[in-house]
Amino acid sequence: MPDLDALNGMTEAAFVAALDGVFEHAPWVAGAVAGHRPFATVAALHDAMMAAVRSADDATCLAFLRGHPALSPGALADPSLTAASRAEQGGLGLDGLGADLGRFEALAVAYRHRFGFPFIVCVRRLTPPFVLRALERRVQGEPAAERVAALAEIGHITRLRLVERVQGPGMPRTGGHLSTHVLDTARGRPGAGIRVELLREGVPIREDVTNAQGRTEAPLIEGEPLRIGRYELRFHVADYFAGWPAVADPPWYDVIPVRFAVAEPEGHYHMPLLLGAWTYTTYRGS
Amino acid sequence: MPDLDALNGMTEAAFVAALDGVFEHAPWVAGAVAGHRPFATVAALHDAMMAAVRSADDATCLAFLRGHPALSPGALADPSLTAASRAEQGGLGLDGLGADLGRFEALAVAYRHRFGFPFIVCVRRLTPPFVLRALERRVQGEPAAERVAALAEIGHITRLRLVERVQGPGMPRTGGHLSTHVLDTARGRPGAGIRVELLREGVPIREDVTNAQGRTEAPLIEGEPLRIGRYELRFHVADYFAGWPAVADPPWYDVIPVRFAVAEPEGHYHMPLLLGAWTYTTYRGS
Amino acid sequence: MPDLDALNGMTEAAFVAALDGVFEHAPWVAGAVAGHRPFATVAALHDAMMAAVRSADDATCLAFLRGHPALSPGALADPSLTAASRAEQGGLGLDGLGADLGRFEALAVAYRHRFGFPFIVCVRRLTPPFVLRALERRVQGEPAAERVAALAEIGHITRLRLVERVQGPGMPRTGGHLSTHVLDTARGRPGAGIRVELLREGVPIREDVTNAQGRTEAPLIEGEPLRIGRYELRFHVADYFAGWPAVADPPWYDVIPVRFAVAEPEGHYHMPLLLGAWTYTTYRGS
Amino acid sequence: MPDLDALNGMTEAAFVAALDGVFEHAPWVAGAVAGHRPFATVAALHDAMMAAVRSADDATCLAFLRGHPALSPGALADPSLTAASRAEQGGLGLDGLGADLGRFEALAVAYRHRFGFPFIVCVRRLTPPFVLRALERRVQGEPAAERVAALAEIGHITRLRLVERVQGPGMPRTGGHLSTHVLDTARGRPGAGIRVELLREGVPIREDVTNAQGRTEAPLIEGEPLRIGRYELRFHVADYFAGWPAVADPPWYDVIPVRFAVAEPEGHYHMPLLLGAWTYTTYRGS
Repeated sequence: MPDLDALNGMTEAAFVAALDGVFEHAPWVAGAVAGHRPFATVAALHDAMMAAVRSADDATCLAFLRGHPALSPGALADPSLTAASRAEQGGLGLDGLGADLGRFEALAVAYRHRFGFPFIVCVRRLTPPFVLRALERRVQGEPAAERVAALAEIGHITRLRLVERVQGPGMPRTGGHLSTHVLDTARGRPGAGIRVELLREGVPIREDVTNAQGRTEAPLIEGEPLRIGRYELRFHVADYFAGWPAVADPPWYDVIPVRFAVAEPEGHYHMPLLLGAWTYTTYRGS
Repeated sequence: MPDLDALNGMTEAAFVAALDGVFEHAPWVAGAVAGHRPFATVAALHDAMMAAVRSADDATCLAFLRGHPALSPGALADPSLTAASRAEQGGLGLDGLGADLGRFEALAVAYRHRFGFPFIVCVRRLTPPFVLRALERRVQGEPAAERVAALAEIGHITRLRLVERVQGPGMPRTGGHLSTHVLDTARGRPGAGIRVELLREGVPIREDVTNAQGRTEAPLIEGEPLRIGRYELRFHVADYFAGWPAVADPPWYDVIPVRFAVAEPEGHYHMPLLLGAWTYTTYRGS
Repeated sequence: MPDLDALNGMTEAAFVAALDGVFEHAPWVAGAVAGHRPFATVAALHDAMMAAVRSADDATCLAFLRGHPALSPGALADPSLTAASRAEQGGLGLDGLGADLGRFEALAVAYRHRFGFPFIVCVRRLTPPFVLRALERRVQGEPAAERVAALAEIGHITRLRLVERVQGPGMPRTGGHLSTHVLDTARGRPGAGIRVELLREGVPIREDVTNAQGRTEAPLIEGEPLRIGRYELRFHVADYFAGWPAVADPPWYDVIPVRFAVAEPEGHYHMPLLLGAWTYTTYRGS
Repeated sequence: MPDLDALNGMTEAAFVAALDGVFEHAPWVAGAVAGHRPFATVAALHDAMMAAVRSADDATCLAFLRGHPALSPGALADPSLTAASRAEQGGLGLDGLGADLGRFEALAVAYRHRFGFPFIVCVRRLTPPFVLRALERRVQGEPAAERVAALAEIGHITRLRLVERVQGPGMPRTGGHLSTHVLDTARGRPGAGIRVELLREGVPIREDVTNAQGRTEAPLIEGEPLRIGRYELRFHVADYFAGWPAVADPPWYDVIPVRFAVAEPEGHYHMPLLLGAWTYTTYRGS
């Protein structure tokens, strides 16, 4: 994994080779910015590459968009798929769409037919139901706006690929943050020892226990995009107030589910729980 | 106090006499609607009288507006003041304006000079600081809009006078509602035995203790306008959680003040307090 | 359905016949209290019958307890089951225990073996998992305490049967209350038009929409026992803040689930939701 | 200001001189621990000095307690008062007791009469009303317990004096923390630009404005004892929701006062405000 200094000092050919695959089947993008080196930050390198894409002539741009693989389980068998695309799509879990998969495939075909290039979306930034929702919206878009939307997605895709290839100062922001905090408002102290589960689109993805400060030792999600989608935190509090006066049998609260949606994959989401014996409050914190 | 049936059955002269003083120095208003009897509701009677005022010609209307007394402590000495005006202004407490009284008097003079009639406002619907605020705003108004505003205030004034003169079906709404309710979210039950004070513009006006349902036996204000102005509830909870575990010495909460403003004198204001041992929540309830 | 006056005036034989089946296979209970008529209230009649049971000699009491049917799906086929027992058990849904059904059957056998009479519980006051939990606890009890517990359950069973047989003054309390109320704390008004689902042990049992006062037109449960068990309210708010400023896409809250447990079948449970755009609070209200 | 290393390396006479006045008129305390040097931490030095005091014989201990000045405005004129005592008492503001000052003086006389030494309390750790409350309680104590209480206060007094005299590793904890944080739950973001006042026993002592993170740039109190007493935060929010839909005129909330009591002078007190347009919640955070 080269650092930015090394990229800045390479021959043009080595530079282009080092960035091979960041832009799908498009070594010309790296070539177009090689002469602008040195870049002071990784973000500046990415910005320059995106600027080169945006200033390409129509035919080049269209060819570039067409060079992107179709999003579909079937596409994984396509030998021309780049390794990066394969890894990204493999993690997409489009099969998680279940009964909606057929609808997705049909809309993807309609999209390509309408715009002349495949539906491009940064699948690491959305959960499968929201990939489908994005397709449902974008298939109805205007061609000019849709080309802008596709390039914006390519910006997201290539930013994530670039930060996995290059180390250096000024890394672009690609990750979000999700954390929680339990305050015990009956005792006036942090809510410790509470098991917390995190589910995404109904699937458990993390589990932790609050510490003496009422927080998990590490954020629930950090350093990776928070996929646009629906989440649920489950606080297991059945025994938390055991021995407390005026506590009922069975306990008033057993599992406290808090459902919310993430809209900004690079955003900061803090989800406190103010837990009383007979009340709780949740809110988007900071 | 006549009832609506009696009013409906009177001679015109008796009808006009019975409503004397509802419209300031303007027996012609009652005279104008006497022929429209019988009225099915008290509200309909009031609507008809206001319609008569609004359809009067300019000179009559202006004379009517000019017939209203000036709002000022000095005006109380004016022997031409009607008994109703005297009672209303006496309760206004304009002297409560303190240092702002001079400003009020000067603006009232400017108002009369600008519009040709005195500043008219239903003083039973605003606290003194908001009477002043209303004057500060209205002195800058346009003449046509200001005449509308003055008539709207006369509507409020006469509605309040009418309901004190006449009994009958379909009384117009002239009163608001202010109540409170304490829920103990640490014990999951109503918060009983808590002393509650109500202040208006910093002056204590009511005091009560919550009952077993966490409510006061009667609303704090009911059946009279809630004066537009600033209010404060004070919940005395110092001993409420005595003996409870994890309670501090001195107790975390002693007096819980909740300040809010009333904007709708005939509105329904319910002010619950969700009281935990180390938290509380207030909101506008319903 | 006789009224209390009629019962008070019947011959003893007619009185015993009218109450046949309230106490399982035990017409002697009605016979023992016939001479105490007239009863002023239905509750007094029930109290007298329970007093007669509690003061019976050991052999009679044991025979009475033994006369109760076993709680089990198999028992429904027993031709000696009274109609009342059949209806109650049919609604129990013991098959809802699923994998735990075998455990239930084994414990019920162990219970009968240990105490000499079947496990008796008022199945209309608990959900199946809590019937099982009650059995798990009671199978470990001491014989004397367990006889007291069995009679207390018979008190619940017969009270419910009696109020379905007799009309009159002083009906004993047999029903609970569950209601909800949504307050919109972003707009300071009731939360109207929100679909609310109620689930019991994960099974949807009611559905309604909040009205202009933020309440459902009728309580979610009223006039029947709230079965001890776990409940969930689901507030469907995805579109509730549509058009509101600072609302995200997808909306921050979609479905708000609130899970809680009922411990008092005849209790009053009010479950308000204070709904802001980015927060909510739930508590046990009153 | 010497550092701990310097103190550890001094002659005994210089060491005793350097700590002169930390223990009131009692150079023997420093003398008693000089031979235990070196001390690894400032806290260990303080612990050793307190151990020396506690192990002194009765006569020495009593003489030491008697060597402490009386707490009273009059005492400030006493030329034998140490500079440290003078500064501490000068900041006490006993005159803030107002009408209670006479009661304080009388109880202080009664205390000295009962126990044979003056009422000793670390006045930097309590507000004047709570100094009085402490005296009211302690004057009723048992002599043995009261001597323990007096020595505990001397521990607080000398700890605060020592940390102002000596720098070094392992400083004992002498300061508390008070901070706030405003969350805007109507917009799902920090509450920025809100003026916050802090009052102690009704007297304004700090004022700040929340920054983009909804916090004040620095804690409201940090690095000094939080005096046991009553505090009030005032959040000035009249204009905060201006332009927001469904906001009333006058605005629903103008000033939000939150009153609370500090019980632990070295404690961590975090006071968040969850601010909605028509609701707010306060709690002890962490």
